[in-house]
Amino acid sequence: MESSNYLETLRTVINAQLDRLTDYPAAVPPRLKEAVRYSLLQGGKRLRPILTLAAAEMAGGDPAPAIPAACALEMIHTYSLIHDDLPAMDNDDLRRGKPTCHIKFGEATAILAGDALLTEAFAAVARTADEAVRAPMAAALAEAAGVFGMIGGQTDDVIGEKNLSGGSPSDGRIALLRSIHRRKTGALITCAFRLGGLAVSAGKDELNALAACGEAFGLAFQITDDLLDVTGSEQLLGKRVGKDAALGKLTFPGLLGIDESRAEAARQVEAGRRALDLFAESRAKSAVIEILESTLTRKS
Amino acid sequence: MESSNYLETLRTVINAQLDRLTDYPAAVPPRLKEAVRYSLLQGGKRLRPILTLAAAEMAGGDPAPAIPAACALEMIHTYSLIHDDLPAMDNDDLRRGKPTCHIKFGEATAILAGDALLTEAFAAVARTADEAVRAPMAAALAEAAGVFGMIGGQTDDVIGEKNLSGGSPSDGRIALLRSIHRRKTGALITCAFRLGGLAVSAGKDELNALAACGEAFGLAFQITDDLLDVTGSEQLLGKRVGKDAALGKLTFPGLLGIDESRAEAARQVEAGRRALDLFAESRAKSAVIEILESTLTRKS
Repeated sequence: MESSNYLETLRTVINAQLDRLTDYPAAVPPRLKEAVRYSLLQGGKRLRPILTLAAAEMAGGDPAPAIPAACALEMIHTYSLIHDDLPAMDNDDLRRGKPTCHIKFGEATAILAGDALLTEAFAAVARTADEAVRAPMAAALAEAAGVFGMIGGQTDDVIGEKNLSGGSPSDGRIALLRSIHRRKTGALITCAFRLGGLAVSAGKDELNALAACGEAFGLAFQITDDLLDVTGSEQLLGKRVGKDAALGKLTFPGLLGIDESRAEAARQVEAGRRALDLFAESRAKSAVIEILESTLTRKS
Repeated sequence: MESSNYLETLRTVINAQLDRLTDYPAAVPPRLKEAVRYSLLQGGKRLRPILTLAAAEMAGGDPAPAIPAACALEMIHTYSLIHDDLPAMDNDDLRRGKPTCHIKFGEATAILAGDALLTEAFAAVARTADEAVRAPMAAALAEAAGVFGMIGGQTDDVIGEKNLSGGSPSDGRIALLRSIHRRKTGALITCAFRLGGLAVSAGKDELNALAACGEAFGLAFQITDDLLDVTGSEQLLGKRVGKDAALGKLTFPGLLGIDESRAEAARQVEAGRRALDLFAESRAKSAVIEILESTLTRKS
């Protein structure tokens, strides 16, 4: 992959900054710090923050102003994983190839570590150097992560799963599944693109193009996530597979079949690529397109 | 109480706005909306938001600009109660005289409702009319609610409780107890005063005075909270009593005895009153002082 050095550089920047942001002094309870860092710093693809930095570079030429927002997105993504893995939610024991936070530290600490990451994400955004973009970024983050976005989608996914998988007509179930994914996964990925643009004070057309790319990419990513739960390797994924079917969840392969799901993912990747036509060719744009396309062949 | 009409007016404003802010459209899962509103709108003293509005009036003459911040504080307070009540945390079944959120809606919904309230609190602050104060308020809120504030204190309170109640010397335990309370309860109450000042662009001296009052009041409030857990009525409090002793928690009456705890609370109330000397006499200032003093005689 041509962009691999560039992406690795972005990943290194993000990991270093996440490390610094959570290197709390002794006033913070050591066990809380340990749990936060255990979940936040043990690998992960850094997909969302990389997209934020690359979007900032595409729209403004410099990824640096977007670093706090990029870290905030990864913190919110990690908090959502910690809470989703809890026994009362998806009850997962394995994440990124290691015991989930509550298995390692107990439920109370896992709940608190998730709460901490969600809160500190807003603290990070509020410390962005450019004062003018702090509040718009906090607003975009809250909207994507809140009841209209991630939490709403997660609620329908976790709470509604038993009522939704059977009975209703197929068209209605596909629309519902798209709606769940647009909120549960898509909102934060779309926000990753938008925050990159906001960080460099991009114009309205550029912000809309970034959001359109994010929406298409979010859907493609979730469709392939569903496919991996059917066809993927537990070892490569670092998490359990076959859970969707066991929980009776709505999934794209469950509703559309594997072939049509793959075709739909390819259509979304193409739509995401076209949304970027507005931007001049650049290292960052090539990298985003490579990430988009790699979704179709990802193994983890 | 002379200020009761004034306080009732503030409470009505807050309750109406909290109702509006959570009157989500159908795109938000109904069960999530119901759980959020169940926990947020069923009474509660509205202590923190009232203090925010009164602080804004003391420092700037008008409480209106502080309404979003006031609502954000009550949302964060409510989220912390929902998560603290969970079985993995304090395992409480009664709150404000009714079944706790997880008893009523199940653990998954309670976790999500808490996450939603925390997130939407930042959304509310980010929508404050005066753009210049949005980011400073979001930063203050995140700091008070995060690892250096409420979550840090709560972690030491929940996770550390078994290690801290015995063994170490009395002076060290009192210092630790003050540190826990300064973070767990005090940080958000101090933030309530500060957000009121920030909302009306108060100067540095005024912000410091508000914070000093908040710190003293927070400590007085927590000491009397500890006392009520020993001497209070479950019916008046709307929550279980005697839980601190049962859990072996550090408390002021446990360490200082009941009489000295009462004396310490009175000293803090006096310190809080003196911190307000900077402000001209006003309806708002009288109300804050009445709230401070009523802490010493509160039954709930």
